[in-house]
Amino acid sequence: MNAEIIAIGDEILIGQIVDTNSQWIAKELNKIGVSIRQVKAIQDTEKVIEEAITDALRTTVDIVILTGGLGPTKDDVTKQAICNCFGVEMHMDPDVFEANKRLLEPLNYEYTKVIQQQALVPSNAVALINKVGTAPGLWIAKGGQVIVALPGVPSEMKGLMLDKVLPKIQDSFVLPHIVHRTLMTYGMGESKVAARISDWEEALPSVIKLAYLPSFGALRLRLSAKSKDKQALEKLVELQIEKLRPLLSDIFIGFEEEGGIEASVAKLLIENKQTLATAESCTGGNIAATITSRPGASNYYKGSIIAYTAQVKMAELGVSEKLITEHSVVSCEVSEAMARGIQKKFKSDYAIATTGNAGPTVDLTDKTVGVVCIAIATPVGVYSEEFNFGQPREKVILKASAKAFEMLRKEILKKDEKLFVVS
Amino acid sequence: MNAEIIAIGDEILIGQIVDTNSQWIAKELNKIGVSIRQVKAIQDTEKVIEEAITDALRTTVDIVILTGGLGPTKDDVTKQAICNCFGVEMHMDPDVFEANKRLLEPLNYEYTKVIQQQALVPSNAVALINKVGTAPGLWIAKGGQVIVALPGVPSEMKGLMLDKVLPKIQDSFVLPHIVHRTLMTYGMGESKVAARISDWEEALPSVIKLAYLPSFGALRLRLSAKSKDKQALEKLVELQIEKLRPLLSDIFIGFEEEGGIEASVAKLLIENKQTLATAESCTGGNIAATITSRPGASNYYKGSIIAYTAQVKMAELGVSEKLITEHSVVSCEVSEAMARGIQKKFKSDYAIATTGNAGPTVDLTDKTVGVVCIAIATPVGVYSEEFNFGQPREKVILKASAKAFEMLRKEILKKDEKLFVVS
Repeated sequence: MNAEIIAIGDEILIGQIVDTNSQWIAKELNKIGVSIRQVKAIQDTEKVIEEAITDALRTTVDIVILTGGLGPTKDDVTKQAICNCFGVEMHMDPDVFEANKRLLEPLNYEYTKVIQQQALVPSNAVALINKVGTAPGLWIAKGGQVIVALPGVPSEMKGLMLDKVLPKIQDSFVLPHIVHRTLMTYGMGESKVAARISDWEEALPSVIKLAYLPSFGALRLRLSAKSKDKQALEKLVELQIEKLRPLLSDIFIGFEEEGGIEASVAKLLIENKQTLATAESCTGGNIAATITSRPGASNYYKGSIIAYTAQVKMAELGVSEKLITEHSVVSCEVSEAMARGIQKKFKSDYAIATTGNAGPTVDLTDKTVGVVCIAIATPVGVYSEEFNFGQPREKVILKASAKAFEMLRKEILKKDEKLFVVS
Repeated sequence: MNAEIIAIGDEILIGQIVDTNSQWIAKELNKIGVSIRQVKAIQDTEKVIEEAITDALRTTVDIVILTGGLGPTKDDVTKQAICNCFGVEMHMDPDVFEANKRLLEPLNYEYTKVIQQQALVPSNAVALINKVGTAPGLWIAKGGQVIVALPGVPSEMKGLMLDKVLPKIQDSFVLPHIVHRTLMTYGMGESKVAARISDWEEALPSVIKLAYLPSFGALRLRLSAKSKDKQALEKLVELQIEKLRPLLSDIFIGFEEEGGIEASVAKLLIENKQTLATAESCTGGNIAATITSRPGASNYYKGSIIAYTAQVKMAELGVSEKLITEHSVVSCEVSEAMARGIQKKFKSDYAIATTGNAGPTVDLTDKTVGVVCIAIATPVGVYSEEFNFGQPREKVILKASAKAFEMLRKEILKKDEKLFVVS
């Protein structure tokens, strides 16, 4: 079972937006056993869309999913391109017409001529009613292949995929089972890890594919396999993971499918019934936003003070002016004082603090752009380290955030050992 | 001048990562006058890569840019696919070999056999030395067309693009000028805006293309045009913008090329020499992270308290227990108290506060999931509003953040009027 995803819209081709729709669709299709042959982003002209559909249908692909170009404005031409492609006309779909009328009524939105035309659909298409927008999805079956067209607005596309398209695909095709398991490691480069696991990799059954995925100090190892026999497949992959785990014991931090390093930290804190607070300067709320983007954060996270000025660091976190003058605001000493300050103030068991120059210019300190000091306060002490994350600004913020989670995780795991030393 | 971008890697096709590289490359190429014909993501097997290169070269495309598959591990096969494609062998490039040796020495990184092979390049390629990684870029010229292969790690790809590839493209081709201008509007739907500007749109010269780009309560209108005559082109587009602006005066908030709504707020505050602080509950630091992701935020932004618990709201923001009991923690009253609390504490001119249920579960309040109260404290008062942003959690956080910036912007612009009323 293979699919091709085609995103329509010049905004992708000129780099104005990142095409997150295709990634989301790929992930959802994969979960139900559909492999993605390729993902394409194309121009939004009738001719280009028509060619892309024709090219895709010429391959052995089973499903073609188009997104975008279904809006009411003149730059939206996907429906016309579909008509051209199959030599059909558009007709007014009465169910869509009524559904759109009902959708707009409570919003006091006028049902204008332009919006009424949203109910025009190619005559060979089944219209899939959109609960949150006026553009219906389209499902066209032709000689064993299926073409699906969805609006480009992510919430509308997602609603239609979950409610209509995925169930229809599961009804229409016999699907295999796909397994992906991704081991996350921290603190060792790709080639060193590859050298360490080379014997294991050589002996890997050919049905399992291994990929190395490096990013921001982390390296993910993904094992992928596909089969009709779900149980045998899962057993085979688990067996290989059992063999691999001992080779990575010092750098393995969890499975990506169970969330990233922040999920691993969240799990540990919830298990230990402990809490966390953060004090951020250069990361500017990114650590807090990462933590709170996960449901259930309120079970262990107390909050943060984003101390973007020296004044706030002193007044709110109890950092002394003397410490700042002596060591500069970007220093391990200040980061430690910030971590202890927020830990005390928010009455948390653990605390993360960051201070640094994200750049591009150096403000008020003698430290180079990219230098960040990170401190972790624990129930038994405080630990800090200075890093140089280079440039650009965005990377400094992301790397510092990832490193802070990594340091915190290590300290939480050290807990028993430390308590022993102290007592 | 046309290019095709091909991203190589199963991690894109299974939806494990979003392909941000292609978006960045598209944007940079566009700036120097190269249009993107299409963007593709493909599987990382030799056969598929070879076919994708061959297919692209068969079209009228001038440049093909490949990313990914240049690492040292066994799953990286782009170089071999290029050799197959052109019937050439690999040879050891002495400059790359030496550059990689110099790169690794100060890092105390062993120059293993595996890493040495990073200097093997197809014999028809010019190797482009990578300053931050061991995988060189490759530049292959063939019959008027150029194939460029770059590593998939974003920082390495970007370094090579900026230092080597973009200058080489500018040297090798005569490039036209491309203009994109994107007007950002807030608070009116796509079809209403379309109806309002339809006369203007009908009269638009055919050389200018208009696109409607809706997202999170905002609607962007993008005008695009391409020509060899830079001055005439810019004049033509500006003339159309002058005609369009008066039609949008109540909803226009700025040009996207000058940054989003947060840039518009930053500009106003810096011009007025005023400051901002934030107190976030349900947005969990996302507003702070958005503000501080822009360089120069320290010129007007004092910081934030992320008050994720009622305890922190009371202790740090001075919200009274009575207010929380009477109105619930998710209420306009509490959001106003939070905004006044942070404004006073951080001595800022303006403050934003958010409190709500991002979901998916309702914690400790009687309010529905998706309900968010946002308050703006100004030098002369405080204003709040309750919204229902629906679900999922991610959308609630993003919509609440965008709405907070929109409300703040309105209050800043009202300033003169308000001061007048008060005095």
